[in-house]
Amino acid sequence: MRPIRVGVIGTGFMGRAHALAYRAVSGIFPGLRPELEVVADIDEKAAAGACQQLGFRRYTSDWKVLVADPAVEIVSITTPNVFHREMTLAAVAAGKHVHCEKPIAPNARDARDMMEAAEAAGVVTQVGYNYIKNPLLGLAREMIANGELGEITGFRGIHAEDYMSNPEHPYSWRFDPSGGAGAIADLGSHIICMARFLLGPIEEVMADLETVVKTRPVRGSADRRPIEVDDIARLTVRFARGCRGSIEANWVATGRKMHLAFEVNGTKGTLVFNQERLNELHYYRAGRDPRHSGFLRIETGPQHHPYGLFCVAPGHQLGFNDLKTIEVADFLKAIDGGEPRGPDLREAYEIQKVIDTALVSSRERQWKVVS
Amino acid sequence: MRPIRVGVIGTGFMGRAHALAYRAVSGIFPGLRPELEVVADIDEKAAAGACQQLGFRRYTSDWKVLVADPAVEIVSITTPNVFHREMTLAAVAAGKHVHCEKPIAPNARDARDMMEAAEAAGVVTQVGYNYIKNPLLGLAREMIANGELGEITGFRGIHAEDYMSNPEHPYSWRFDPSGGAGAIADLGSHIICMARFLLGPIEEVMADLETVVKTRPVRGSADRRPIEVDDIARLTVRFARGCRGSIEANWVATGRKMHLAFEVNGTKGTLVFNQERLNELHYYRAGRDPRHSGFLRIETGPQHHPYGLFCVAPGHQLGFNDLKTIEVADFLKAIDGGEPRGPDLREAYEIQKVIDTALVSSRERQWKVVS
Amino acid sequence: MRPIRVGVIGTGFMGRAHALAYRAVSGIFPGLRPELEVVADIDEKAAAGACQQLGFRRYTSDWKVLVADPAVEIVSITTPNVFHREMTLAAVAAGKHVHCEKPIAPNARDARDMMEAAEAAGVVTQVGYNYIKNPLLGLAREMIANGELGEITGFRGIHAEDYMSNPEHPYSWRFDPSGGAGAIADLGSHIICMARFLLGPIEEVMADLETVVKTRPVRGSADRRPIEVDDIARLTVRFARGCRGSIEANWVATGRKMHLAFEVNGTKGTLVFNQERLNELHYYRAGRDPRHSGFLRIETGPQHHPYGLFCVAPGHQLGFNDLKTIEVADFLKAIDGGEPRGPDLREAYEIQKVIDTALVSSRERQWKVVS
Amino acid sequence: MRPIRVGVIGTGFMGRAHALAYRAVSGIFPGLRPELEVVADIDEKAAAGACQQLGFRRYTSDWKVLVADPAVEIVSITTPNVFHREMTLAAVAAGKHVHCEKPIAPNARDARDMMEAAEAAGVVTQVGYNYIKNPLLGLAREMIANGELGEITGFRGIHAEDYMSNPEHPYSWRFDPSGGAGAIADLGSHIICMARFLLGPIEEVMADLETVVKTRPVRGSADRRPIEVDDIARLTVRFARGCRGSIEANWVATGRKMHLAFEVNGTKGTLVFNQERLNELHYYRAGRDPRHSGFLRIETGPQHHPYGLFCVAPGHQLGFNDLKTIEVADFLKAIDGGEPRGPDLREAYEIQKVIDTALVSSRERQWKVVS
Repeated sequence: MRPIRVGVIGTGFMGRAHALAYRAVSGIFPGLRPELEVVADIDEKAAAGACQQLGFRRYTSDWKVLVADPAVEIVSITTPNVFHREMTLAAVAAGKHVHCEKPIAPNARDARDMMEAAEAAGVVTQVGYNYIKNPLLGLAREMIANGELGEITGFRGIHAEDYMSNPEHPYSWRFDPSGGAGAIADLGSHIICMARFLLGPIEEVMADLETVVKTRPVRGSADRRPIEVDDIARLTVRFARGCRGSIEANWVATGRKMHLAFEVNGTKGTLVFNQERLNELHYYRAGRDPRHSGFLRIETGPQHHPYGLFCVAPGHQLGFNDLKTIEVADFLKAIDGGEPRGPDLREAYEIQKVIDTALVSSRERQWKVVS
Repeated sequence: MRPIRVGVIGTGFMGRAHALAYRAVSGIFPGLRPELEVVADIDEKAAAGACQQLGFRRYTSDWKVLVADPAVEIVSITTPNVFHREMTLAAVAAGKHVHCEKPIAPNARDARDMMEAAEAAGVVTQVGYNYIKNPLLGLAREMIANGELGEITGFRGIHAEDYMSNPEHPYSWRFDPSGGAGAIADLGSHIICMARFLLGPIEEVMADLETVVKTRPVRGSADRRPIEVDDIARLTVRFARGCRGSIEANWVATGRKMHLAFEVNGTKGTLVFNQERLNELHYYRAGRDPRHSGFLRIETGPQHHPYGLFCVAPGHQLGFNDLKTIEVADFLKAIDGGEPRGPDLREAYEIQKVIDTALVSSRERQWKVVS
Repeated sequence: MRPIRVGVIGTGFMGRAHALAYRAVSGIFPGLRPELEVVADIDEKAAAGACQQLGFRRYTSDWKVLVADPAVEIVSITTPNVFHREMTLAAVAAGKHVHCEKPIAPNARDARDMMEAAEAAGVVTQVGYNYIKNPLLGLAREMIANGELGEITGFRGIHAEDYMSNPEHPYSWRFDPSGGAGAIADLGSHIICMARFLLGPIEEVMADLETVVKTRPVRGSADRRPIEVDDIARLTVRFARGCRGSIEANWVATGRKMHLAFEVNGTKGTLVFNQERLNELHYYRAGRDPRHSGFLRIETGPQHHPYGLFCVAPGHQLGFNDLKTIEVADFLKAIDGGEPRGPDLREAYEIQKVIDTALVSSRERQWKVVS
Repeated sequence: MRPIRVGVIGTGFMGRAHALAYRAVSGIFPGLRPELEVVADIDEKAAAGACQQLGFRRYTSDWKVLVADPAVEIVSITTPNVFHREMTLAAVAAGKHVHCEKPIAPNARDARDMMEAAEAAGVVTQVGYNYIKNPLLGLAREMIANGELGEITGFRGIHAEDYMSNPEHPYSWRFDPSGGAGAIADLGSHIICMARFLLGPIEEVMADLETVVKTRPVRGSADRRPIEVDDIARLTVRFARGCRGSIEANWVATGRKMHLAFEVNGTKGTLVFNQERLNELHYYRAGRDPRHSGFLRIETGPQHHPYGLFCVAPGHQLGFNDLKTIEVADFLKAIDGGEPRGPDLREAYEIQKVIDTALVSSRERQWKVVS
């Protein structure tokens, strides 16, 4: 592969994660050659620091400079969600491939604009739903597609963490309703993505969104600000394939740090996964010797591609950053003419439609078709 | 305590479980003295066999004889649900204390009749929601009541098993719609009971009930019979105390044998329980030394009353039948003038109202107040 | 089966456990009919209380009266170990079947005397190694015997608890060196029994016994008494079948309440068990589809006899007292002419020889043949 | 930090792991600047391929060229163990800092030569005992050192995998007795390192080494070659601090992929760790509220340095390659004048002495002092 130059906007949690993944990927995946070209952050000192530490060639405090940079082929967008639209449209307009963090937009309309622009421009897009890059998720999807679970009868998914559980956690952009939603956007989008990855489209939703902590303190002030976005979202869903399920997003789940989990039941088997133990997938197969009835704890190994590129021996385990590296590899391969593996902006738009539908359903307290 | 004579109607799974519990309880709990007097089963051979093995004094194939027996003080009803109403009313009319298996009735109206008759007669009643008799459930309830979890922010409960997951499992009385419902009645009632035990009344429900296996073979025939009752029920609920939650009942969850589980989140802590490991309760307490952030796996021991009556040493573990023994002990103590600990027919009626409300909610596809 | 009358000596933890098991067994196992005849305790009030609560017909403060009682057919011995020899010999001399708690004697010589006397008298004996009565242990043994694990290559066993971990735990009869040994006798005997149950005789031992807490307070005194018996025993062993292993006994393992666990490796598979989760057995089978490589968590169910006699549904779980009930059932069946399933006094003698050998090995700091 | 140029000898599992770590470290740890200069492999094509993919500047098939290269400041040695001595001595003679994989030598004499040469030359050395770089291991060590477990009463450690469990696994250099030993060298060295890291020096050993698979097929031949090295090693050990323990190394443990685990008991608490779930540490603290008695499952987070450099959010989890990155960071900081954190060649020599002592102990079947 030719070198592909990358510009990263944002130097926070995800900006750093993207840069680390682009740095790592060429060592892990044969033939990939991204180069870290420019990093942008509105805080120039942060940009300069990230530039030096992460090995970019240049930095800027103006993301538009980055987007306009002719050397840059990929624009990676890791800023707060509210900026994703503008940046994506600008990058697409400049003919760049776009790697955007999730959720991509405050609402499906914006997401559709972004998707349509990208598709019209013919650029490759990648959205940061990194958890489905886990080789065990690939295995789960393949087993479902192969019919190894029989006919699917139900799904139960959750993404719960506790970073907002302290009522004294101060107000931040994540609570801004113009960003679209709360836990359902930040966490729910992951488990919706996972549900779709495994089982395909969700076509109808009944949701109940709830704000548990009614006001949050304003940093540097004695005031408290009322909160409008959801702390918890509970969805009942119907998949286009016929089965149904439930989904919960929750950022006030005290004690939970990464409870991104699902259970899929089928007439012939069941799969259970929990990101808290991301190197394990639990599998029950009906019809086994009854003496040995139970769940199999599958451990990741080289037989689960691309684990073997990280480590030739089983049981050594992947970490979070490795999932991001796989995401980047898939993106680079697609740019280089490979089969896009997504999730791309179209998929992110589909996820956003489910979220939007959930918001309406909750407000109107009734079932809503995802449309 | 004076001897209290027991008549058990039914000799199946639960009939046997009741009898074993009445046999065991006097050895475990000081002062309790039930005596197995009569056993009834419509199948006289079954009645005779149970009589001999379980140590009853007499048997009958006519449950009315049992109810009318002046020696009998407690009538234990373990037949299919459809008979519970008639038997309970007869027993109450005869002035007997009633121990009835769950769910007590096909609908809340019948349940209310049963409850009102019992209350009017002043008899003590006990319903077989044995799982809440687990000492760890008592601990959980106490911790919540004490405020050790802070303000409760959410509940997620499930009771999933797989005994109906095979589409070739033949039609039986459990699928008879005149019995009221399917999984939500058979399993859902347990997790609804548990939710109420921990958090109090549920006041509003949005439910989605689903029949996954559309037809079942008729035993001894080539025909298949259409199924109307639910295989899976998914509820979103609002508790009177203010928090919300979700509840699932599922009898087609391939691989699950006893997945009766919950998570309760509060602002100060979280509890996680799974009947698959019934001697463990997982507890996260916010504000602990951050180096040691995590869930505590509490193991049952003598400090969790009444475990110590079964075994003086910790870690030895209770089994299912022991839970039934605790249920029976609570019942006998209430008959002997102690504080009733329930669940009684009133509680069972409240549970049944939630189920009925769920049925209506699912049919009408909207939120329904439990009334 | 004819009624078989039982006398129980001792009313402590195990006295009670025996009585509960004899009470329960006839309800669980068809055809068994033990009757609780006499209970003896040197503390007459304890004897009277146990008699009333547990349902014996008579009590006595003189165990010799119990042994001499012509109605008594089984003598159950649950006193401190130091009395087992005298009581067993007396019971055997009186032609009684003997159910003795473990360890049966302070040393192999005494154990042999007991065994020889019992065998000469032709009575049936049962020793309280209840943990091997778990249906999953039966499954494990059967799988090993069937060759399902291939050739066995190693064993690792442990029984660790923490009831002596507090250095201020007062001196008691368990520390009396005339009782033979400490943790290796009280706990080690269980895991040695389990090792032998699964893999057959141990023929050579290298042991290291250690007293961690050097002195213990004397109850009701300011003095401390030096401790001679072992708190921890670590053994390397060679089995007669050719494989080797390690065994640990530890009663100062802070936090461990019932860590009785093993792993058996074979060329074709592995089994892992932990009494902390006694209803689970973990099984790895080599050669499975590599995508699904991992350990299977087998859950107990009716397919694992005699679980189904306790409960017809899987996943409901047995508890500790249920294991004791199975032990009693095996004993009663053997008395009634069935195949003795042990462990009997001969097996207990074999276990004691391993313990004695370990003591010598540790003292002499060298390998010792079990002879 | 100034740039530090690295040469890596070997391109297999560990050669690649080293290179990936040197690539990643500057992105994760602020201020570190290694540069991949030369890679050597006796197979020139492998060297060329690794050079291109991993981003070295040059490659060579002659490791002596690498060692002599004046640009190279660090020599990383990842070849089969038998070459470590010669390469290390050459690198040290050339004034290079040495990063050597474990075990460093076939015996303690060679290890001592290496250590003495390095210390005389004043170079920094690092040995690839990467598992102790886990932040949770650092926490465990600190808790023990702080006295949070009280007085330590026992240790149980194991490193078991199954890569040699198939008797048809062909003969390779790992079975060559001139390499020193089998499982005890390859795996045992890790758990011995961990034991020393937590509890300090081991001063006496009683070992039993066993060759389970007596002959192995020779690749490309019908012959089988007898095996002399150990498949399983079982050690009883005494630590200089006074406590004792047991250690097992096992490369035929069917089903185990990364069972590197320990339990440390103290009078006030216990720690349990298993590399199979490397982001969890289980902690029991005596004296807690008895209602909440149990083990705490500590999950890694930013509070466990340097996890936060990889990811700012808790629960996201580190993987194997991240541990190697921490190892490299510690090494680079020491070269740059920081406090060496080891394990260095001196520590590796100490580990090797334990292994050598175990070999003698097993051969002579008696306790041996580590000297």
